[in-house]
Amino acid sequence: MRDLSNDRSLLAVNSATVKPWNLEQLIDGCVRAGIPAIAPWRDIVQAVGAGKAGNMIRAAGLTVTSYCRGGLFPAADEAGRRLALDDNRRAVDEAAAIGARNIILIAGGLPKGSKDLAGAHAQVRDGIAALLPHARAAGVPLAIEPLHPMYAADRACVNTLAHANDLCDQLGEGVGVAVDVYHVWWDPDLAAQIKRASSRILTYHVCDWLVPTRDMLLDRGMPGDGVIDLRSIRAMVEATGYSGHIDIEIFSAENWWKREPAEVLRICLERHRTVV
Amino acid sequence: MRDLSNDRSLLAVNSATVKPWNLEQLIDGCVRAGIPAIAPWRDIVQAVGAGKAGNMIRAAGLTVTSYCRGGLFPAADEAGRRLALDDNRRAVDEAAAIGARNIILIAGGLPKGSKDLAGAHAQVRDGIAALLPHARAAGVPLAIEPLHPMYAADRACVNTLAHANDLCDQLGEGVGVAVDVYHVWWDPDLAAQIKRASSRILTYHVCDWLVPTRDMLLDRGMPGDGVIDLRSIRAMVEATGYSGHIDIEIFSAENWWKREPAEVLRICLERHRTVV
Repeated sequence: MRDLSNDRSLLAVNSATVKPWNLEQLIDGCVRAGIPAIAPWRDIVQAVGAGKAGNMIRAAGLTVTSYCRGGLFPAADEAGRRLALDDNRRAVDEAAAIGARNIILIAGGLPKGSKDLAGAHAQVRDGIAALLPHARAAGVPLAIEPLHPMYAADRACVNTLAHANDLCDQLGEGVGVAVDVYHVWWDPDLAAQIKRASSRILTYHVCDWLVPTRDMLLDRGMPGDGVIDLRSIRAMVEATGYSGHIDIEIFSAENWWKREPAEVLRICLERHRTVV
Repeated sequence: MRDLSNDRSLLAVNSATVKPWNLEQLIDGCVRAGIPAIAPWRDIVQAVGAGKAGNMIRAAGLTVTSYCRGGLFPAADEAGRRLALDDNRRAVDEAAAIGARNIILIAGGLPKGSKDLAGAHAQVRDGIAALLPHARAAGVPLAIEPLHPMYAADRACVNTLAHANDLCDQLGEGVGVAVDVYHVWWDPDLAAQIKRASSRILTYHVCDWLVPTRDMLLDRGMPGDGVIDLRSIRAMVEATGYSGHIDIEIFSAENWWKREPAEVLRICLERHRTVV
């Protein structure tokens, strides 16, 4: 395990953390702060176009840890599943254009009106399998991110690292996992599943679980403000040989999204150094 | 599996579902509606005293499926853990006094200021072990109820049926599990863990997962109003040989708790017959 007195060389900032900023502002802000890597969401990349976005990012010398995000495979009918697959292929192309090291996939939830969880699981597996040839050809690994079980119905029905690992076993080369502490910290099987994931860990995300949590989606905490034992989970991840960036991703409508983004970056840097 | 065109003989109503009612009203309401069983929370039992409560329930001829609830074992220091254990022993005595078939235990979350999840898990195991001799002597089985992972920090750090089954393996006779669909429906390992639990299933709770869910604690749905495949999960439970009651437990501050409780019971009866 590497020295935990972090310098900023491993810090990546997810664009969701500084949501008020567009891509240009994100790039400028990170360069000014000496932050070497970003993980942009599609909205800010599409706003300028993926080709131009890639040029801007390369010109600034920033690493793109992940592109956020594809997935959302289950749909009520074949036409819906085809639309999702087409959109995922475009997302992979965008990821390639900006030089992202991988693309994050979240599963998607139950199709509208459905209670068939096992069926949704199968649609996710089949959707990733269908996307995989395109992703392999583009050289963009697919990072399956299990989301917290509270999102199973409407956002993602892959909710444990065990399930994501099972999908990797089934799908083979070109598929890995994204470990986000917010989604997996509670899991009593976490240490074993991180060990099992091992070299499949494509990216590592941090934020914190606040007590109380006031909103199921938009009340994530800055690292250090909640109850997650960040150093322990990081040690598990790095014990597998993971030496990539650590991506701070915070959805926080009522707190961090209302602050001045440059100040948010300053606090990310400080927390990266002291508690991540 | 038994015929699913339910008559009311298997329905139990949890007192949380008709929260405005006291024990006398709950008993009267269930007798009027022809509902044969109840699962009272401690507040309404303690309000009259457990001895008198038992007399009232027996006089009405009602079954007590479970007493809700004990647990909450982790604490920041030994004195706190001893207080919790003492309170649990009193809860077991109350359960015995009202003739409850078991007492529900929820684990409790992280002690204030702690990020040590593994330590909290150990405190839960040790707390149940310490309570067990008293519970065995009182003839009250302990039903460990895994709660949804969104409660891991502040309410219960046992969040999967696998974890509850592990605790049963470690603790032996006198300990079982409570399966509540709200907490476990999302789990890809559910079928296997229900099968593993088998005769350890002491009680079965239903409500529904609403989309959207507007509050993490108090926005549970009436069976049939959400996305949980109730009939499938019930079939898994009954395939183990479980033939006990089905307890409708709904926390719903903004909807069901605001309605006339007798009307809520009428709808519980209807949903029990049609969708549970």
